[in-house]
Amino acid sequence: MEDKFKEECGLMAVWNHTEAANLTYLGLYAQQHRGQEGAGVVALNRAQGSFAIHRGLGLVADVFEDYDFERLPGDAAIGHVRYTTAGGHRLSNVQPFFSEISHGHIALAHNGNLTNTVELHKELIKEGAIFRSTSDTEIFLHLLARVPAVQPKTEIVIQALQQVQGAYSLLMILEDTLYAVRDPNGFRPLCIGTLPDGGLVLASETCAFDLIGATYLRDVEPGELVEITGTGEITSYRPFGVQQESPCIFEFIYFARPDSSVFGKNVYGIRKELGRELARSHGVDADIVIPVPDSGVPAAMGYAEESGIPFELGLIRNHYVGRTFIEPQQSIRDFGVKIKLNPNPEVLRGKRVVVIDDSIVRGTTSRKLVAMLRSAGASEIHVRISAPPTRDPCFYGIDTPKKEALIASSQTVEEIQEYLGADSLAYLSIEAMHTAVHGDAQSFCDACFSGNYPVKIGAQRAAAQKTIFQDDTAE
Amino acid sequence: MEDKFKEECGLMAVWNHTEAANLTYLGLYAQQHRGQEGAGVVALNRAQGSFAIHRGLGLVADVFEDYDFERLPGDAAIGHVRYTTAGGHRLSNVQPFFSEISHGHIALAHNGNLTNTVELHKELIKEGAIFRSTSDTEIFLHLLARVPAVQPKTEIVIQALQQVQGAYSLLMILEDTLYAVRDPNGFRPLCIGTLPDGGLVLASETCAFDLIGATYLRDVEPGELVEITGTGEITSYRPFGVQQESPCIFEFIYFARPDSSVFGKNVYGIRKELGRELARSHGVDADIVIPVPDSGVPAAMGYAEESGIPFELGLIRNHYVGRTFIEPQQSIRDFGVKIKLNPNPEVLRGKRVVVIDDSIVRGTTSRKLVAMLRSAGASEIHVRISAPPTRDPCFYGIDTPKKEALIASSQTVEEIQEYLGADSLAYLSIEAMHTAVHGDAQSFCDACFSGNYPVKIGAQRAAAQKTIFQDDTAE
Amino acid sequence: MEDKFKEECGLMAVWNHTEAANLTYLGLYAQQHRGQEGAGVVALNRAQGSFAIHRGLGLVADVFEDYDFERLPGDAAIGHVRYTTAGGHRLSNVQPFFSEISHGHIALAHNGNLTNTVELHKELIKEGAIFRSTSDTEIFLHLLARVPAVQPKTEIVIQALQQVQGAYSLLMILEDTLYAVRDPNGFRPLCIGTLPDGGLVLASETCAFDLIGATYLRDVEPGELVEITGTGEITSYRPFGVQQESPCIFEFIYFARPDSSVFGKNVYGIRKELGRELARSHGVDADIVIPVPDSGVPAAMGYAEESGIPFELGLIRNHYVGRTFIEPQQSIRDFGVKIKLNPNPEVLRGKRVVVIDDSIVRGTTSRKLVAMLRSAGASEIHVRISAPPTRDPCFYGIDTPKKEALIASSQTVEEIQEYLGADSLAYLSIEAMHTAVHGDAQSFCDACFSGNYPVKIGAQRAAAQKTIFQDDTAE
Amino acid sequence: MEDKFKEECGLMAVWNHTEAANLTYLGLYAQQHRGQEGAGVVALNRAQGSFAIHRGLGLVADVFEDYDFERLPGDAAIGHVRYTTAGGHRLSNVQPFFSEISHGHIALAHNGNLTNTVELHKELIKEGAIFRSTSDTEIFLHLLARVPAVQPKTEIVIQALQQVQGAYSLLMILEDTLYAVRDPNGFRPLCIGTLPDGGLVLASETCAFDLIGATYLRDVEPGELVEITGTGEITSYRPFGVQQESPCIFEFIYFARPDSSVFGKNVYGIRKELGRELARSHGVDADIVIPVPDSGVPAAMGYAEESGIPFELGLIRNHYVGRTFIEPQQSIRDFGVKIKLNPNPEVLRGKRVVVIDDSIVRGTTSRKLVAMLRSAGASEIHVRISAPPTRDPCFYGIDTPKKEALIASSQTVEEIQEYLGADSLAYLSIEAMHTAVHGDAQSFCDACFSGNYPVKIGAQRAAAQKTIFQDDTAE
Repeated sequence: MEDKFKEECGLMAVWNHTEAANLTYLGLYAQQHRGQEGAGVVALNRAQGSFAIHRGLGLVADVFEDYDFERLPGDAAIGHVRYTTAGGHRLSNVQPFFSEISHGHIALAHNGNLTNTVELHKELIKEGAIFRSTSDTEIFLHLLARVPAVQPKTEIVIQALQQVQGAYSLLMILEDTLYAVRDPNGFRPLCIGTLPDGGLVLASETCAFDLIGATYLRDVEPGELVEITGTGEITSYRPFGVQQESPCIFEFIYFARPDSSVFGKNVYGIRKELGRELARSHGVDADIVIPVPDSGVPAAMGYAEESGIPFELGLIRNHYVGRTFIEPQQSIRDFGVKIKLNPNPEVLRGKRVVVIDDSIVRGTTSRKLVAMLRSAGASEIHVRISAPPTRDPCFYGIDTPKKEALIASSQTVEEIQEYLGADSLAYLSIEAMHTAVHGDAQSFCDACFSGNYPVKIGAQRAAAQKTIFQDDTAE
Repeated sequence: MEDKFKEECGLMAVWNHTEAANLTYLGLYAQQHRGQEGAGVVALNRAQGSFAIHRGLGLVADVFEDYDFERLPGDAAIGHVRYTTAGGHRLSNVQPFFSEISHGHIALAHNGNLTNTVELHKELIKEGAIFRSTSDTEIFLHLLARVPAVQPKTEIVIQALQQVQGAYSLLMILEDTLYAVRDPNGFRPLCIGTLPDGGLVLASETCAFDLIGATYLRDVEPGELVEITGTGEITSYRPFGVQQESPCIFEFIYFARPDSSVFGKNVYGIRKELGRELARSHGVDADIVIPVPDSGVPAAMGYAEESGIPFELGLIRNHYVGRTFIEPQQSIRDFGVKIKLNPNPEVLRGKRVVVIDDSIVRGTTSRKLVAMLRSAGASEIHVRISAPPTRDPCFYGIDTPKKEALIASSQTVEEIQEYLGADSLAYLSIEAMHTAVHGDAQSFCDACFSGNYPVKIGAQRAAAQKTIFQDDTAE
Repeated sequence: MEDKFKEECGLMAVWNHTEAANLTYLGLYAQQHRGQEGAGVVALNRAQGSFAIHRGLGLVADVFEDYDFERLPGDAAIGHVRYTTAGGHRLSNVQPFFSEISHGHIALAHNGNLTNTVELHKELIKEGAIFRSTSDTEIFLHLLARVPAVQPKTEIVIQALQQVQGAYSLLMILEDTLYAVRDPNGFRPLCIGTLPDGGLVLASETCAFDLIGATYLRDVEPGELVEITGTGEITSYRPFGVQQESPCIFEFIYFARPDSSVFGKNVYGIRKELGRELARSHGVDADIVIPVPDSGVPAAMGYAEESGIPFELGLIRNHYVGRTFIEPQQSIRDFGVKIKLNPNPEVLRGKRVVVIDDSIVRGTTSRKLVAMLRSAGASEIHVRISAPPTRDPCFYGIDTPKKEALIASSQTVEEIQEYLGADSLAYLSIEAMHTAVHGDAQSFCDACFSGNYPVKIGAQRAAAQKTIFQDDTAE
Repeated sequence: MEDKFKEECGLMAVWNHTEAANLTYLGLYAQQHRGQEGAGVVALNRAQGSFAIHRGLGLVADVFEDYDFERLPGDAAIGHVRYTTAGGHRLSNVQPFFSEISHGHIALAHNGNLTNTVELHKELIKEGAIFRSTSDTEIFLHLLARVPAVQPKTEIVIQALQQVQGAYSLLMILEDTLYAVRDPNGFRPLCIGTLPDGGLVLASETCAFDLIGATYLRDVEPGELVEITGTGEITSYRPFGVQQESPCIFEFIYFARPDSSVFGKNVYGIRKELGRELARSHGVDADIVIPVPDSGVPAAMGYAEESGIPFELGLIRNHYVGRTFIEPQQSIRDFGVKIKLNPNPEVLRGKRVVVIDDSIVRGTTSRKLVAMLRSAGASEIHVRISAPPTRDPCFYGIDTPKKEALIASSQTVEEIQEYLGADSLAYLSIEAMHTAVHGDAQSFCDACFSGNYPVKIGAQRAAAQKTIFQDDTAE
């Protein structure tokens, strides 16, 4: 079931194409699931040395409704979709950021979370920096602006990036050059593709390439700084030394679109394999396997194939559900779940049901789901989760609830099963998850399951959350 | 693939419940797929004898965003979602209609299309009627207003209805009584349910009952006029004589939500059975079966089960697609299809693929789909349609293209296959379709496939379409 | 001070001009003061026999913001601005109304109020009419629709109009003919002008002619039905018999723009003369004369000229004031008045002040005004009203408060003076008012001052106000 | 006639009042004429040490429509209305600015224009500053942020201000202290008032005090830095040395509301006196004196009084005119002027008319005005301007056209008269203007008339206007 976690962002860039801004917009459109609260595109007209910007709150389709792309002229562009945390600045947080700094004009789009924000922020303020937000992304601008004028320009970027720690996939246009970076751990994805008529594209996920007819070339590698100039010449830098890489395994479990490849692997295939692993390790005698749609579908298919139990659609998702609905005062049983998912009693009545979901966060929704399935006639309900228990928050770019809100951080599987009211409950083990992804524990970040954080978290990070001001500038 | 046909409307009513309007709104919410361009609710406060109305253009969630249901007080309500044809009046067409007529105040919501509209319109105008629209629904109001004052009140309704022909499921509040009707053929669905705490509900589809915790009681039967009074007393009338009933089989093929029951049958189960029939009659040697999502999914599951060919998700639907997107000037291959459906090359590459869809209308989209699948690596593409060829327009409430626009009206299956570029193409036969629905040719309307129209179409119906005025009153 | 009364409507028509709709819109723009809550234009393309309509809620400038007048093609058009009473139907009340009736298509715009609405409504409902509103204007449509098909077409209009009583200036396009009418009393204005390049125009006030470069020709006369055809051929009918005419004197006192002529007389000149009469009959020893702007300015100028007391601007109007403002919880003295009018203490300090206003309605605002002037330093405050006491409501098209709300209906001039806290108070006598208008008591309706109603008011008019339904259809 | 020049801003502050934000909003409301394109309020809750911000594009009434002032809690607030130049950043330019800098949180609102912006901008960028706009106001923030941490806090403000040159009236909250400043020349107004219940208020014009019941105390003096703390304790600093002050004389001529006092003088009285001076120096034999409303009214009254020629309203202003209107393709004579001002032919016909206006900018509007008056029947037209010829642009906060666009910069009075088509034309002399203001040439800035700029303009100011980027972020 969706909306359990929030991905911070999706990235897109197009280089050397006459319709750079329009293609960038389409790439954001395809990556809408990575951030639904704001979108923006900055275009560079290299011949003129001029920039144009359009940003707004809302879905990509809304921000660019009836938009005339002649207002974003140029042959290069970067774009961004984002999720904005409630309150705080609003429109002023929509990326790409654009500023004039000592080294010229800069446009910047960022996916991830830094871990030394508090320290950097404190230091920069002391040196006279002005902050409009507590956003990590603004940190990059200040660091870049403070690097002395050195040559070549790429050295400026390197010196700035060497000061930050944590998770960042970055796209940046500095005057006439496009830079793309992944942090040394490579937490967040970023890949490069080619357009049929010669240009280059970059995106968080390959589904963006598919829509505009681009071909996947390779990933920007962990710790790589890519400089793109001219007609698409790529120069690669490795300014951060050698580190153990640890891309986010949760992109496979939940975030990425199933038709995308991230970190070089197809998401749909991995999800089915997670379901198969789950069937191998946690089989059960049952009549049907049903997914919690949409994200649970591939894993349920894999479970069904491996177990031989028929795959059915026992829950139907209402795709018209908006953000809000008005609940009657008089309570309706299981209402909060039913507004999104309706059980199909014809499928469920009298059946022993295996329900496949990809995670349990607070447990409240899953509990309602179990109750709803039971009242629709299921005789047994066996919950199977295609990932290990989510026990720890993410500090690298995914908006998870706090540790104390995660049911698995304080309760055993047996206790959770009892809370849900399920006849049985099983999770995939961490090892089985890594096996399904065809990797090993070393090669991916699994901190949200294991608590093993590959990059140390700044001690004051949590303390920095206190809100000193509230800006509800009308938008 | 969606949006090929437009259902005109969805209906909802609640009787004898303190939150009648709020529950009606939720029932419309669940039936949003039946009409996305306008919604409305009329509430009746029986104690006061007063009515309140709220209507608007757009999705139910938008029309009622932040709405205060205390502005729709009462213990009875009817609601409507509709699809509005382009141009023409706009807000003025959103139902329920509300008027004062000779017999008191009346609220009316209609699903269907009359076949003698032109004749009735002409006659009514001659008698001094004023028309704001060419909508069929306005006809009912005028007919009701013109019936002389007779007793009992139900006689007025009967005399008005005896003048119309065609398809109509109707909900009507006349002063203090709720009426529900299905035309003698029973073209469009309408069913009755009970609320846990005593009230009655009516809806086009049972998915509306599920959301609000109501229980299906029975269908309003073809040719039945139901009068509801007091605490939910039902009186049934049969004012139209005996006729052969013919509910719309297309509700099963395409329109209704899979978790609904219409005409007493579960849609999901029938769609799977259509897929199984298709596998029996049009098997093929292939590697995978993929649906055109979302409507093709159950049939593809049935095909896969019956044939033993694995079911896969080879096409991923982008659920964030809005009504509009801005295409680049430079054409992108298969763009129009890819904006909604992205092929998953990992699944398709080198595979012999059976693609299951529920219909082919003009053929243009299917052709792009086949091309897209091929360029994603499918080695063979076998298109299977879980219904017979769509050859004739519907005149009973579904907005089909004109006959000449339907590719199957002028081309053979072989010609269509060639046009699509598929390796094979097969449709379900009309007989097999009826078998899957567990009925026989007599018991359902299959006019869009067979051209056998159960009710004669008024000769001038087409001629009446000429637009004499254009109203773009700002809304 | 403005906003004391509401004029129901302003009318505009253009005949035989290639930009008929655009000129009509401009004529409404100039007459915005006659109705600020809705506007609309219906255009007729005589060559095609087709109509186009645009209406909306709000100011003319808002309703037609960025409007493309090619969507209102044709060489004839009528338009309307209106004030909508709170609640009730909203967008559905915006005129011109447009319908198809037995005699063809009709567009209709109305200024005034009928006095036999209740009787007509009752009768029409009985005969099968369907009402969407309690608007008088809808009555005309039903009456027209019910006239049998007679020849010539003008006879239809005549037969319909002969059934109504009360105040109506009407513009109507019936198929290919424009009709303009004033009721036999001629309550509301309507005048005819010519365009430089040959077309005809009609408007409530001549300021509409000035803006588009038209020249005033003559008034439509009381009881005259004007038929306009061809290139602007006027045929005049007198279907109502001879009656004593009684145009509304309040158009001069308050409503019309000062640069307009209504009923053949310049408003500005009359307002100055009202001020002069006031000085003659109610002189006072004082230092300065100040108007309550904007409507009191000409009368104050006349008073100053006649009395020789200097004219000053002691109150400055804030023209940016919108409909709403947020008052602090802690009360500010005289706030409700000061938000619109600010006293200029430099002008007022230590002065004996004559304040000229055109009316006192409830007295509450005038009382605050007096208090505010006093606290700004005025040593004496002499209120002079350039009209007689407003004692009775209008039933002929002006939205006055009920009789009991009018302070002068129950209190003597002395009592009002005491309530206001003024040092003296005087009104113009009814005779002096007529003298200033250069007419006599016979020739104008002064019912709001005298209670002499030239046309009897239907007994049930007030009773008809009960709201049986509430429609807040989203707009 | 309005809209010839644009004032950049209006300022408002409230200190030590429980409804600080609401009163600040009302003060902006009263000063709406000083900037119509954006408004904002920042409130400080001193007990909590927390800030809240609300800003938006549009009129004050729109930005704060239905606003809940509990979202701006606190006992101190500053506010701003502004005019935004076309293009450029939009919402991001709406003030007050709010940021976190090295010395804490800061809110800042500015009226005026700096003259050394280009130099400061260049230097700041070199030192690592990030600019979001080319706004002068951002310069202040950077200068403040770069001052080393010194004690007392006021020293920080002083060191920052000592670096800027030009025109600035400033309101600033730095942590828990309110600062108010006028530049040494005192170009723009700023005054202090007291609230009945103990708080302090500051505003550009006294009309803001009148609305909220505050009493004028004194002006912030040229070159004075006022520090406000505690319950309203004022400490005054003079950090800039002694300079000849030169407040803007144009505030009297055109900008300020007539009921305001600025620089300690009542605007209305001065405008009348300008009219009297004009009558003395440029009398003419005529029948009537008419103003170009609204700004020309007091001068016309003074002219009429002095000359003995009757004052009349020959031009009526349409107060409903919005920003836009749709002109017909076929040209209407004098249309552009008539949409705002309608001549009253009854007043003008056959008359020798003196027309009083306060300035002529390009001459195009005045020319149309003269033509319009003539075609309304005026026999002679004598244009009198209540100020000297506008020959030079303002660099101190008023948005004047470029020098070459000012007709008086290149043409003699005789040439302008001929261009206008007037029978005579006369301006007030610079000396007579100063006499009317009761000052002398030394004591006011008259650069727009004389070209004598009291503060040198940075050489590169004009060059800095080149647009390198275009931001149309959706708002």
